[in-house]
Amino acid sequence: MSETLHRQHKAHIDNLLSAYRSLMAQYDYDSIALYSGHASPHYGDDQMPNFQAFGHFVHWVPLVEAEHSWLVVHRDKRPTLYLYAPNDFWHLPTVLPEEPWVAEFDIQLCTDAFTPSLNDNTAIIGNMATLRECEDALPNGQANPETLTHALDELRMIKSDYEITCLREANRLAMAGHEAAHAAFAGACCELDIQLAYLAASRQRESHVPYANIIGMNQHAGVLHYQHYDTSAPTKRYSLLVDAGRRFRGYSADITRTHLGPDAPALFETLISAMYAVKDRLIAQLAPGVDFVALHEKMHHELAEVLIDHGLFRGSRETAVAEGVTRAFCPHGLGHSLGVQVHDVAGLRTASGEPAPAPEKHPALRLTRTLTPGMVVTIEPGLYFIPMLLTPLRNTDLPINWTLVDQLMPCGGIRVEDNIAITLDGFDNLTP
Amino acid sequence: MSETLHRQHKAHIDNLLSAYRSLMAQYDYDSIALYSGHASPHYGDDQMPNFQAFGHFVHWVPLVEAEHSWLVVHRDKRPTLYLYAPNDFWHLPTVLPEEPWVAEFDIQLCTDAFTPSLNDNTAIIGNMATLRECEDALPNGQANPETLTHALDELRMIKSDYEITCLREANRLAMAGHEAAHAAFAGACCELDIQLAYLAASRQRESHVPYANIIGMNQHAGVLHYQHYDTSAPTKRYSLLVDAGRRFRGYSADITRTHLGPDAPALFETLISAMYAVKDRLIAQLAPGVDFVALHEKMHHELAEVLIDHGLFRGSRETAVAEGVTRAFCPHGLGHSLGVQVHDVAGLRTASGEPAPAPEKHPALRLTRTLTPGMVVTIEPGLYFIPMLLTPLRNTDLPINWTLVDQLMPCGGIRVEDNIAITLDGFDNLTP
Repeated sequence: MSETLHRQHKAHIDNLLSAYRSLMAQYDYDSIALYSGHASPHYGDDQMPNFQAFGHFVHWVPLVEAEHSWLVVHRDKRPTLYLYAPNDFWHLPTVLPEEPWVAEFDIQLCTDAFTPSLNDNTAIIGNMATLRECEDALPNGQANPETLTHALDELRMIKSDYEITCLREANRLAMAGHEAAHAAFAGACCELDIQLAYLAASRQRESHVPYANIIGMNQHAGVLHYQHYDTSAPTKRYSLLVDAGRRFRGYSADITRTHLGPDAPALFETLISAMYAVKDRLIAQLAPGVDFVALHEKMHHELAEVLIDHGLFRGSRETAVAEGVTRAFCPHGLGHSLGVQVHDVAGLRTASGEPAPAPEKHPALRLTRTLTPGMVVTIEPGLYFIPMLLTPLRNTDLPINWTLVDQLMPCGGIRVEDNIAITLDGFDNLTP
Repeated sequence: MSETLHRQHKAHIDNLLSAYRSLMAQYDYDSIALYSGHASPHYGDDQMPNFQAFGHFVHWVPLVEAEHSWLVVHRDKRPTLYLYAPNDFWHLPTVLPEEPWVAEFDIQLCTDAFTPSLNDNTAIIGNMATLRECEDALPNGQANPETLTHALDELRMIKSDYEITCLREANRLAMAGHEAAHAAFAGACCELDIQLAYLAASRQRESHVPYANIIGMNQHAGVLHYQHYDTSAPTKRYSLLVDAGRRFRGYSADITRTHLGPDAPALFETLISAMYAVKDRLIAQLAPGVDFVALHEKMHHELAEVLIDHGLFRGSRETAVAEGVTRAFCPHGLGHSLGVQVHDVAGLRTASGEPAPAPEKHPALRLTRTLTPGMVVTIEPGLYFIPMLLTPLRNTDLPINWTLVDQLMPCGGIRVEDNIAITLDGFDNLTP
């Protein structure tokens, strides 16, 4: 892989440089300075939270942990990378990787936090608030000009071959974790130990995951962003939902699997299979020109079908969708853009490309674009038994089979999620 | 333990209330409002770094993860705890623990981030910068008045019985991790897997550790705040240094152990034993009235002795200390105060109790106090082979045995660290 990757990386940087230079010409900037950011200690303490470098910086430079560093892209000379590399005995020194991409930049290793000298015609992109904390004076230039920032975000929407290779490799590494998590669940481990098994098999530490892994057993599978890891296993094991990722050169995998526990009702097993089939049917529809909002609506029709087929809803597909029944069983969006951030930028735009909030009918949807080749999206249909959302429906005359719902409540829910690249004539599922 | 703990916790809160009220009377405040703080997402992203609640909040309330929460301590009525408990289906809801301490406060569960109404005579203690991010207007009151803040810091220096029980339990839990780490090293694991074994045995996730665990093999043992975990094991295994903790109700253990690898020279084994003996001799001197700066200087004399006894230095003890030889082998301080923060507050004070920087001769020392009963300190002598510090001495005529130093270089270094409470007539080692 290595040689292909490095060739693709060079092409990625070349293309990015052209695109940045076009934007500089269009908006009349001499240079664009990307600040990686830096961590600040917990308040009143000297310990640091975990850190990830700013997405636009990582888009060029595959150093996710680089703090106090700058990439300055010029209109008329090679980009300069100012890489913070303190010369102390407290930490392992920063060294440049022995990889071909370093030849694409003029590189200065800076022993102190350093702000390059910039002119008024520079666009500075990054966290100005943290920069202000460690600099007496901010550099010259214009901070995060809105139009340019939106255009840079837009560049991240279409992935290069290099980026797709990285996302595929992140998926491969994450999947090893998912297999280990499944095995740990079969071995009756608790959530914490399943998470540690996931980390061990995917070869990463928790502070480097692209998002907090969700490892939810039983009813926790129905808590969409479940944020704990229980340290003891429950007596009954109905289900396990694992939504967990992995970075590769900054690029994030975001995969979800739901597993059957030994104590689940037979219906839950059938529902898991049905949801895998829903995921695959939705993925099969991915292609350039597809409207993601329309596909999200198709997901709701698929969910209605599942509810009806399994006796959970005794009405029509149209009623299930129109009356918000499918929304009560699945309150989140079909998917989102994926890149150096797990919820990548520029997902919410109008048809003409202007940033816009999610549609009123689908407030949790993070992607409203018409698909084009190079986009990488997640497809993650879900079906949950969430008391807070279902309880209000109990007092309606909607034909929901509450006996079955109550049997399934202890299982929490189901989500299955793959990562897919849109190709010239269809799709490429990056999840093995 | 549980019943004793809860009785001690009540006494801790009672004493804290008296102390806060005395300070309010002394400095003329109606109330003191402690803000727990909250996490902010990574710049340009929607993912959050790990979070720990502000130390002064945790000093009262054992909820280290509480965000957007307030404890308001009044001069003339019970303290009020405003605990943020959003009512959403995305996260597992915050619930009050079923523990007696909750009866000591008037508690309001707040579904939205909430700022209590405060008057001008309230002292607000906490991170005003983050508060400003999420509130249109800051509450009335005086933000972090300096004299009061120093006095509150000072209250954290002397630990109550409750706090010492917590620190002892944190030590017990951490030690299980250290044993597992040692076993994983014996099993030829790499740094990442040793870290995961530590987390599994100490029953915690990385994002909850009180400080980033240092798991350093070979030369990494000589990188004082070594920040990585290698994902493959080195061919030769000379040494492992594990500096790793655990929280219990917010209170932190901070324990270091150094282990011998199969490929180390015999001298390294002798040096490890010698350093354990140095640690024990320094601990044996702990008692009320002891000046910690003087004890730090004694550590340097002990280190000189070790260097001379093992043939590393062929001069006098006085020369080794005076010429900075011991400092080149151990550039850090003897220890620090320990509490709800691993480097607890108020460690650096003048004899009269005023905040002051570390002494010029000992710039890395974090504790300059005269010991009194109730202080809890770490004792962590070290001996390292750090090229950046030793290389400059090679061109001097100091009688260092460079042949031996070069043999030891691949071992990185040694540190051993226990956590000790100062008692009325001596000390109590909390590390099992």
